[in-house]
Amino acid sequence: MAVLGIDLGGTKMALATFTDDGEKISVNVKPLGNGQGKEVGMMVTTGIETFLSSSLQEGNMIDSIGISIPGIYRHKRGTVWAPNIPGWDDYPLLEEVKAVAGDIPVTIDSDRACYILGEYWKGNARGCQDAIFMAVGTGIGAGILVDGRVLRGSNDIAGATGWMALDRPFRKEYVSCGCYEHHASGEGIAKVAREYLAADKSYSGMLGNKPSEMVTSHDVFAAFKQGDTIAKKVIEEAIVFWGMAIANYVSLFNPQKIILGGGVFGPAVKLIPHITEEAKKWAQPISITQVSIEASGLGTDAGVYGAGYLALKSKPQ
Amino acid sequence: MAVLGIDLGGTKMALATFTDDGEKISVNVKPLGNGQGKEVGMMVTTGIETFLSSSLQEGNMIDSIGISIPGIYRHKRGTVWAPNIPGWDDYPLLEEVKAVAGDIPVTIDSDRACYILGEYWKGNARGCQDAIFMAVGTGIGAGILVDGRVLRGSNDIAGATGWMALDRPFRKEYVSCGCYEHHASGEGIAKVAREYLAADKSYSGMLGNKPSEMVTSHDVFAAFKQGDTIAKKVIEEAIVFWGMAIANYVSLFNPQKIILGGGVFGPAVKLIPHITEEAKKWAQPISITQVSIEASGLGTDAGVYGAGYLALKSKPQ
Repeated sequence: MAVLGIDLGGTKMALATFTDDGEKISVNVKPLGNGQGKEVGMMVTTGIETFLSSSLQEGNMIDSIGISIPGIYRHKRGTVWAPNIPGWDDYPLLEEVKAVAGDIPVTIDSDRACYILGEYWKGNARGCQDAIFMAVGTGIGAGILVDGRVLRGSNDIAGATGWMALDRPFRKEYVSCGCYEHHASGEGIAKVAREYLAADKSYSGMLGNKPSEMVTSHDVFAAFKQGDTIAKKVIEEAIVFWGMAIANYVSLFNPQKIILGGGVFGPAVKLIPHITEEAKKWAQPISITQVSIEASGLGTDAGVYGAGYLALKSKPQ
Repeated sequence: MAVLGIDLGGTKMALATFTDDGEKISVNVKPLGNGQGKEVGMMVTTGIETFLSSSLQEGNMIDSIGISIPGIYRHKRGTVWAPNIPGWDDYPLLEEVKAVAGDIPVTIDSDRACYILGEYWKGNARGCQDAIFMAVGTGIGAGILVDGRVLRGSNDIAGATGWMALDRPFRKEYVSCGCYEHHASGEGIAKVAREYLAADKSYSGMLGNKPSEMVTSHDVFAAFKQGDTIAKKVIEEAIVFWGMAIANYVSLFNPQKIILGGGVFGPAVKLIPHITEEAKKWAQPISITQVSIEASGLGTDAGVYGAGYLALKSKPQ
């Protein structure tokens, strides 16, 4: 008896089976290629069919299925909006998966919801009823646990923290992605670095080794490690924004834990003490003493663990 | 049969009885004078005893009691922290009220929780499972309803929205009250006006009619109405901060309604269309189309209605 968790990303899909205690039994990662629309849907359903039949042969009955999707899951409709999968504006994933899953219950939720559920189940938010996962990758999203339940909002789009307003005045660059995301996401760090590179004609550091439009957040972190002046300015600015965002979660939610994950944390994990110092300046002074700010305990596995937890919770009793 | 709601403020206490349908049967307002510590506790318990015995004489049995307090209610301990009542750092209000209430159930919660519960019961948040009351008075707090339940946080201090970080760089003025409260609370509006008055030696408008340390937010709103230049600058800045704060609630919580109340809304109610325009710039673009931003439907009665609703919910079935 096992549950199946699926972490559907923009470029690959991870399928893993877990015992009820959260022990990972098996894992299988499939690239999605450049799939679009129904192709990706087929890859998911075929992946599940294959997994179910091989599990059956191995004598591992699957009790329930949980799926983490890279975007918004519309609970009432059972459909998915995933900005990085072309054609998935309102994709009927639940219906398609149910067609191959038969009687096995299927639960779907957004990646940010799954990250915090994964950490709650088997990561650094164990035992916390009130906790937040801040995922900083290309964009920024937050999975928020309130009293043990995922904060969903009236239409499933709560946690859109990349849109947080953290600095005046409003700039046209915020229109497409939000203020916080512009300044402190992976893509944002690269954008801010490019702005500084364009403005500083005398700069001769390592970020000038490639055309500035090719500079990524990885390059900025590598240059920061070497003491590069522009990288230092960019990362120090990002630390302020991360600290302000975390302070706002602390003041609004009074959580026990804030977990930092996503591709940027990664290299930014080393900066957590500095980010925490920044958050302390801004946050409600009692609430900030009641929270622990930590790196993800599951790293890139947070999504698949969260999907496994979704499955476990929907398992027939 | 009726429930008793009590709104304990910093300077007065309102007691009201309601039918189960939320019809107000009677109301009674008592000044607290300059009471401190146990004196205020006595006024509350005496008020309840008097009310209970007169209700009994009138044949109106009280089934349950709800109390809104001006601060933080510590649920696990039954104690109150109220910054405007000297000696109420950890005041054992539940124990004292229970001693006079006998078998009648007593429920206590923070004023901000009661505001949103009042609006949910009988005001402008009726029918909303996800709604936020932003109370802008001397300070700023938020009562937040998530999935029909008040957001409490791990230690009852969620909703401390006055501490929201909304503008870089950090300033020493934020240390005592938080960035948002410094710029946009009633006291904040007065402080910002005083800063501008001190900086503008050539100013000859109506805000100069009294010593600048006496200028209040009421004066600023009155001057704004007359087209005063400094008042205009202060209020326009406050509109930006209110819009940014509301945008952040929208992006994080995806609520159906945001209700604006407290003493400042009040005169700022007329500004809601401008504040909404500002919020639209910053917020998650889909979520902002799903929210309605409105003035309180209950005004200064929001707290006592919320207390009544607390009572109703704890009534023996």
